[in-house]
Amino acid sequence: MDSDGFRDLAHVGSVEIFTPVPDQSRSFFVDLLGMSETGRQGDSVYLHAWDDYEKFTVKLTGSGTSGIGRTYLRASSPEALSRRVAAVDKLGLGRGWVKDEPALGDVYLCVDPDGHEIGLYWDTERFQPPAGKGPSLKNQADRFPGRGANIRRLDHVNYLGVDIPAIGDFLRTGLGARLTEQIQLDNGNVSAIWYHISDKSYDLVYTNDWTGTNGRLHHVAFATDTRDDILRAADVMLDNGIHIETGPHKHAIQQTFFLYVYEPGGNRIELCNAGARLVLAPDWAPVTWTQAERAKGQAWGLKTIESFHTHGTPPVG
Amino acid sequence: MDSDGFRDLAHVGSVEIFTPVPDQSRSFFVDLLGMSETGRQGDSVYLHAWDDYEKFTVKLTGSGTSGIGRTYLRASSPEALSRRVAAVDKLGLGRGWVKDEPALGDVYLCVDPDGHEIGLYWDTERFQPPAGKGPSLKNQADRFPGRGANIRRLDHVNYLGVDIPAIGDFLRTGLGARLTEQIQLDNGNVSAIWYHISDKSYDLVYTNDWTGTNGRLHHVAFATDTRDDILRAADVMLDNGIHIETGPHKHAIQQTFFLYVYEPGGNRIELCNAGARLVLAPDWAPVTWTQAERAKGQAWGLKTIESFHTHGTPPVG
Amino acid sequence: MDSDGFRDLAHVGSVEIFTPVPDQSRSFFVDLLGMSETGRQGDSVYLHAWDDYEKFTVKLTGSGTSGIGRTYLRASSPEALSRRVAAVDKLGLGRGWVKDEPALGDVYLCVDPDGHEIGLYWDTERFQPPAGKGPSLKNQADRFPGRGANIRRLDHVNYLGVDIPAIGDFLRTGLGARLTEQIQLDNGNVSAIWYHISDKSYDLVYTNDWTGTNGRLHHVAFATDTRDDILRAADVMLDNGIHIETGPHKHAIQQTFFLYVYEPGGNRIELCNAGARLVLAPDWAPVTWTQAERAKGQAWGLKTIESFHTHGTPPVG
Amino acid sequence: MDSDGFRDLAHVGSVEIFTPVPDQSRSFFVDLLGMSETGRQGDSVYLHAWDDYEKFTVKLTGSGTSGIGRTYLRASSPEALSRRVAAVDKLGLGRGWVKDEPALGDVYLCVDPDGHEIGLYWDTERFQPPAGKGPSLKNQADRFPGRGANIRRLDHVNYLGVDIPAIGDFLRTGLGARLTEQIQLDNGNVSAIWYHISDKSYDLVYTNDWTGTNGRLHHVAFATDTRDDILRAADVMLDNGIHIETGPHKHAIQQTFFLYVYEPGGNRIELCNAGARLVLAPDWAPVTWTQAERAKGQAWGLKTIESFHTHGTPPVG
Repeated sequence: MDSDGFRDLAHVGSVEIFTPVPDQSRSFFVDLLGMSETGRQGDSVYLHAWDDYEKFTVKLTGSGTSGIGRTYLRASSPEALSRRVAAVDKLGLGRGWVKDEPALGDVYLCVDPDGHEIGLYWDTERFQPPAGKGPSLKNQADRFPGRGANIRRLDHVNYLGVDIPAIGDFLRTGLGARLTEQIQLDNGNVSAIWYHISDKSYDLVYTNDWTGTNGRLHHVAFATDTRDDILRAADVMLDNGIHIETGPHKHAIQQTFFLYVYEPGGNRIELCNAGARLVLAPDWAPVTWTQAERAKGQAWGLKTIESFHTHGTPPVG
Repeated sequence: MDSDGFRDLAHVGSVEIFTPVPDQSRSFFVDLLGMSETGRQGDSVYLHAWDDYEKFTVKLTGSGTSGIGRTYLRASSPEALSRRVAAVDKLGLGRGWVKDEPALGDVYLCVDPDGHEIGLYWDTERFQPPAGKGPSLKNQADRFPGRGANIRRLDHVNYLGVDIPAIGDFLRTGLGARLTEQIQLDNGNVSAIWYHISDKSYDLVYTNDWTGTNGRLHHVAFATDTRDDILRAADVMLDNGIHIETGPHKHAIQQTFFLYVYEPGGNRIELCNAGARLVLAPDWAPVTWTQAERAKGQAWGLKTIESFHTHGTPPVG
Repeated sequence: MDSDGFRDLAHVGSVEIFTPVPDQSRSFFVDLLGMSETGRQGDSVYLHAWDDYEKFTVKLTGSGTSGIGRTYLRASSPEALSRRVAAVDKLGLGRGWVKDEPALGDVYLCVDPDGHEIGLYWDTERFQPPAGKGPSLKNQADRFPGRGANIRRLDHVNYLGVDIPAIGDFLRTGLGARLTEQIQLDNGNVSAIWYHISDKSYDLVYTNDWTGTNGRLHHVAFATDTRDDILRAADVMLDNGIHIETGPHKHAIQQTFFLYVYEPGGNRIELCNAGARLVLAPDWAPVTWTQAERAKGQAWGLKTIESFHTHGTPPVG
Repeated sequence: MDSDGFRDLAHVGSVEIFTPVPDQSRSFFVDLLGMSETGRQGDSVYLHAWDDYEKFTVKLTGSGTSGIGRTYLRASSPEALSRRVAAVDKLGLGRGWVKDEPALGDVYLCVDPDGHEIGLYWDTERFQPPAGKGPSLKNQADRFPGRGANIRRLDHVNYLGVDIPAIGDFLRTGLGARLTEQIQLDNGNVSAIWYHISDKSYDLVYTNDWTGTNGRLHHVAFATDTRDDILRAADVMLDNGIHIETGPHKHAIQQTFFLYVYEPGGNRIELCNAGARLVLAPDWAPVTWTQAERAKGQAWGLKTIESFHTHGTPPVG
């Protein structure tokens, strides 16, 4: 590890998404995003993106409402996992070891200061394509689906949170993540933070929840190989009656090419493409955007749509 | 019409393709190219590309072998159709009127000097999407499929032929087509001709059949909206065991971005994209490529693969 | 010709654009759009897009204000030109023959009912690249620039006009153009019309001028080969301080992928890509969009920006 | 660090390239790849890719012949640098500290077992755009060039080497790099190895030098944001007389979309795009390709061109 714990976590592994309309949500992820089903258990369906080396990418769980369940973060080694467990425990945010996910080994459960559940783990089951249905190239997890948005992998999670400074401290001290960009309002408050644990420019994002509610989700994002995949996905969403919130367009912050839609369960899903952008600098100076800069909208001048600031899941009464 | 009959024909309407393995070929066109089935009759399945305004784009017919059946060319008006019928008849290549295609009106049947059947027509049935399954935008024929290569429309047909000069005369005098590019060998023989009837730079292509056999097919081509669609299609073909003959790459002649595959019945299928290229000049001077220029290969230096010069359908004993 | 004169005109040839800041505008067209300078005369600079077969694509003229000058439309043949001259003359909109453009032959000058000047012509000078600077492929007019937006050719002109029905009559009867799409307001008024003279789905567009002023311009559009070229162009515009009005995004009407910017002289310029979309049907039923449909915004849900309805050139006092 | 030293090195920083025709090579890198000049010293020109946070990306040095000079690898921290210096020193491959590169601090010089010079460093000068010429978005190093291939950053270096196993040991033990893919011939010899130090699937590649010569270069690779950028680059290379060796196409190994050209000095340059592919698994099992698999050619069936196996720089007598 680096002295600050950076690299103790390797990447975001998978995420649990709650939906009140599980069949419709499953159809969205399979038929329109291009994922495949790899298993079922209880009210959950396990879904896999074609180039994820692990058994599942999304655990879609039928529930009374929408929102996000546990986020799984894979450690870089068993030793790195031990270091992170100790660090999180020291912050009083550890909840202990569990073994409740069939495709994962022992998971150390913890929560961020906003109450979102996070599972840290090392042991994981590899994805195996069905017999006779594997890809032609052996350096690829599964066949290319040729379906809908053809998402390649989970990219990042953007949570809503109330106490952003406390969350930032947890990300830095507990998880060993590093800040790459943030928004600071004129009153001095930091309203959104982008942290990375990999060479991607962000993996875990938190935006201030204007309702003051804990534990909610802003969006889950999946990476496509090209910007053209995202343009194509917009056509797919349009013709399948999926609500397009905004995009395709390019963010000023992080410069991601994006499309935001609401899956049938109400959760905001982003399709994103970073081009060749990586934050490789080990001493990257975080970029701070002012309130005025933020107000200018997206990279090419698109005004940020109002619902982007207000919609989160589950909905607040 | 122009004095040479140019514009009497509006566009290539549809084409019949023969296959000895109809179920596998149908799966190729539907699952991998993204077409939809719009009807069946006898041994034929009618297939539709998502932005074709007519009822069908391909008539796929089970048969003892592979190859091409009738090509349908739509006239620009009833009067234009009459002019073309008279011109073809004068060449002794007319075969009379038939009414044997449910989605078309009266068809004037003729043959090119190589024996390929061509049907000229005006009346045609419009494509109607299934109830409740139409596209979101009303200036589009059908929903965007989000499947495989997502081909938009039939683009051109490339026939094999024996007497290229005679064929060129038929295209010019009979059909009112115009030459845009050709290959002329060192011995003076023209070995390949590209004619257009629309603003596209070619619609009907003939290449010399080295076997001396009449009536064969080099390939049928379908247009995608982007080059990226073609790159994606290559991944789809690879993972579905379809033989990729050559590409994706860019032709020097006509500058088309291409991918050639063999559908399960053995017929060569091209996916093509022309970018914004159109031949709008009404007095376009045909471009003649020499044998030496042809030998240089494709636009970016790719050598032309041997089978491209030899494979045609049906196979010759 | 068809009985309605369709096809008597082959394509939009070139357009004159006025600018109060000629040097800055020239830099925009050359450095940012990728055009090249092919001549100068008086206050005008002639600019060429890399795949235009004619000598010039844009005539950029220094002037007291912005706006559009003459639009040149090339006929399909000398006979077709005569027919159009007679038809326009019959409408009382002809202004007689002139020979005032070095790279063109005799030009028949006319005006649309809104006063925009239109020049009809047959004789034209071919573009010749500078010696030793020609393209590698001989079916291409000039070298690929590898600069800025790399626009391939002029695509269409969108005028502002006051009496839309009268203009539509002129386009149909005078020019032999055909309507493909239109907007009809709840009060029955048609507020915008898209006509084509080629296989492209539109070449000449008129939008109602809310100021009631005659002779103004909404925008001039240039085609790129790919949607990715347009995304790239947005980056180029952003980093060169060019005002991006809206886009990149996809229109619902005509489904064009677009980017609108203001060149330094104030004229709105569109970069557009139609994918493989063509209107090949000779009996295309015009698509009418209602006021409510228009209010829904662009294809993927983007609200139409206010200035798109109000900004025209030259500005109105 | 991980126990194997992985992550002690953050990324490939820059590379020195030798050329016998420095002016022509500079023009290639600046005009055709889209780099900018940031300084000169002696026979060297410093060149910068638009999103490199460091002062230079390539040091282009006039020389009697072609080939590769020093490769600079940036450490993850001062402590990580110390660990790597100790590890390399232990292998007897250290050459001591130097301070001879203006934009870098102290550099620890070493050689791989094949004699290629490698400089390890921590201190580095940040790129600063010229006053008034900076980018619009402050999370980007320089303006987007809008020129030629628009390469974003240095991606990887592929060396030729004689004793591949010894080199692999150096990469693993000395540099803390990890193997992701390799080719193993039927005789058991490993002929090519792909190692990564970042989340990219490879950063340092070695291919067996069939001539048995030490210290040569196979190619230096630069990343573009999109595959379309690479297709565009092929047009740029074609029209500027640059030798295209092979591509654009997609590798089976590592699945990179590629274009290989020879810059005027003779060095092979790759333009590459990986889509969203990253090797995030901390326990990635290296993929081994057999001689038979290698013989199948590239991903979509393109046969590997002969010169790809034989051409290296400097040329061997």
